[in-house]
Amino acid sequence: MKKSYDALTNALPHIRDLHAYVPGEQPQGDGWVKLNTNENPYPPSPQVAAAVTSEIEQLRLYPEPVSAKLRQAIGERYGYSAKNVIIGNGSDNLLDLITRSYVCDPGAGHTVPSYSLYPVVCGMSGQTLIDLPFDRSMQLNIEALAASDAKVFFLTNPNAPTGVAFLLAEIEAALQAIDGLLVVDEAYVDFGGESAIPLLRDYENLIVVRTFSKSYSLAGMRVGFALASEGIIGMLDRVRDAYNLDRIAQAAALAAFDDVDYFEAQREKVIATREATRRQLDKLGWFSYESAANFLFTEPVNPAGETGAEVANELFNFLKERRVLVRYFPGHPLTCAFIRVSIGTDEQMQAFIEATQSWLNNA
Amino acid sequence: MKKSYDALTNALPHIRDLHAYVPGEQPQGDGWVKLNTNENPYPPSPQVAAAVTSEIEQLRLYPEPVSAKLRQAIGERYGYSAKNVIIGNGSDNLLDLITRSYVCDPGAGHTVPSYSLYPVVCGMSGQTLIDLPFDRSMQLNIEALAASDAKVFFLTNPNAPTGVAFLLAEIEAALQAIDGLLVVDEAYVDFGGESAIPLLRDYENLIVVRTFSKSYSLAGMRVGFALASEGIIGMLDRVRDAYNLDRIAQAAALAAFDDVDYFEAQREKVIATREATRRQLDKLGWFSYESAANFLFTEPVNPAGETGAEVANELFNFLKERRVLVRYFPGHPLTCAFIRVSIGTDEQMQAFIEATQSWLNNA
Repeated sequence: MKKSYDALTNALPHIRDLHAYVPGEQPQGDGWVKLNTNENPYPPSPQVAAAVTSEIEQLRLYPEPVSAKLRQAIGERYGYSAKNVIIGNGSDNLLDLITRSYVCDPGAGHTVPSYSLYPVVCGMSGQTLIDLPFDRSMQLNIEALAASDAKVFFLTNPNAPTGVAFLLAEIEAALQAIDGLLVVDEAYVDFGGESAIPLLRDYENLIVVRTFSKSYSLAGMRVGFALASEGIIGMLDRVRDAYNLDRIAQAAALAAFDDVDYFEAQREKVIATREATRRQLDKLGWFSYESAANFLFTEPVNPAGETGAEVANELFNFLKERRVLVRYFPGHPLTCAFIRVSIGTDEQMQAFIEATQSWLNNA
Repeated sequence: MKKSYDALTNALPHIRDLHAYVPGEQPQGDGWVKLNTNENPYPPSPQVAAAVTSEIEQLRLYPEPVSAKLRQAIGERYGYSAKNVIIGNGSDNLLDLITRSYVCDPGAGHTVPSYSLYPVVCGMSGQTLIDLPFDRSMQLNIEALAASDAKVFFLTNPNAPTGVAFLLAEIEAALQAIDGLLVVDEAYVDFGGESAIPLLRDYENLIVVRTFSKSYSLAGMRVGFALASEGIIGMLDRVRDAYNLDRIAQAAALAAFDDVDYFEAQREKVIATREATRRQLDKLGWFSYESAANFLFTEPVNPAGETGAEVANELFNFLKERRVLVRYFPGHPLTCAFIRVSIGTDEQMQAFIEATQSWLNNA
């Protein structure tokens, strides 16, 4: 070694302290009933394949830099202009752009629990994240939200990992009460939530973030979008990587977005399966939050009638041994007694229920 | 409007002052001889198409988060470990991660002229960029580079927009002389430069950045990679978006990387065409820098024997009217008398030379 360099001490202090986001397990082998990262059990629109292959011949050329066709289509669908839309390399990319552009002292805010990426994007920019704790009701305390004084408040609606949806009236009350920006992260809204997009007409302090990962079945393609005022979109575009979306991602997302009939059919299937699964969990006597998302957050009860972290953890491991993968969040008192189960096909949910029955019978 | 929000004054001061990167024109119509953004005139390896289509069925599922197969293949090829490799959504993504992790006062450094993205990534993080001016020789002043005291120095080798390559001995001298990190941006190295990758064994203060956009013909796919010490890669991974590369981009890049014979054949064709074009420009009596890249930086001379900004600008516009698109950089005294011509097919270069001849005859 002719010259050493300490990669840790030379890094910026907030990077040294940063804990990277830990995504849910992505097992690469076959044979898993994978219900742990809220993927759609159905493939994307059949139009996507043709859109993808049509771009292969053009791969030597840079993509169109702003994803203009996608902005146009999304703007039109929701009654806004393309200038109100930005496309991200996944919605995570957009959450980072928002943080880099608008978060400064005293920091950003989020509910606890919610999406565990918010602390990471704030940490990446060296900014504080203010916690707004839920109680077990998982209802929104709008006064406390406003009192946080957050420059940007991240609100997942429907919430994660609970699936609980907030009313549009609550979102509007929050927009009235705050001084900063409200980012409504609607990753799961297509499965039963009320979108805040219509409120953009009246509230310039609103950004609505969406993703193609869940309801459009394109988690593998990394495409998200946001709607906001022209001024905010213009500012986020400054920080956006000039070519943040590749050719194929742009084409695939546009094809999926245009195939409305297919989209509607799949999301109705997911909702029907969710409700059927919910009824089976109810029959077991388990508490589950009312879900407007493509997952259920449920509190397992063992045959001795006990709930709690040990019970949930035991079921999680039991299911995993049988290659049924769900998500367990041990890190918080409001989540540690629950498991989160993504909604798969009817067959996958039956496999989950059967494995759960076998846990109940063996315990 | 029930609630207004000033998107400009509420943005962070360095974002308010930021000028977004302006990519070269990407004309969407047909009929252009497009020699303006250094794309490869040949399509990517025929293996890429099969790799892309094989992923379509999996698009509903998240990608493998770290692009492990690609890290492994790249590490092995260059005699390092997968832990010495990180994959970016384009190399621009990696330049941003490096800046976010390691740039603080007094700032980053770059040569002037060089890649115009460096000011943007520094501006996005609110950091200063220190200029190291070239003179017309475009040779590296290593003492001045070291005296800049930059925390991170971005050095494009071969340089852009000149195509001039620095010797490995110069890179090593710079690594010896500096206290910060040297980022050698080798976007064009496959067309004739000497790579600094072997120096990684001895210099922990080195990061080598590469891209699949040029020599692998995948500009439309957005894949870059960097090699550095395990410590540096680990730090950059903290700031990396957990799913920064989609499934198709990972598969396409791996297929292109594995097809070594095809890669070699295409880059040799590009080099041969560059040298043939160079000889034609020499015959016109124009000065061109010795290029180790897939472009030529040449100083047009009009029939009156004049050079300068007006002459270069006139030729640029004349060519553009004939749908031959090259790049013109009016913003700096060392670039404003030149045009940069990407190396296309022999036919495309013939079209460029013929249009240039017609400018000389009509002037």
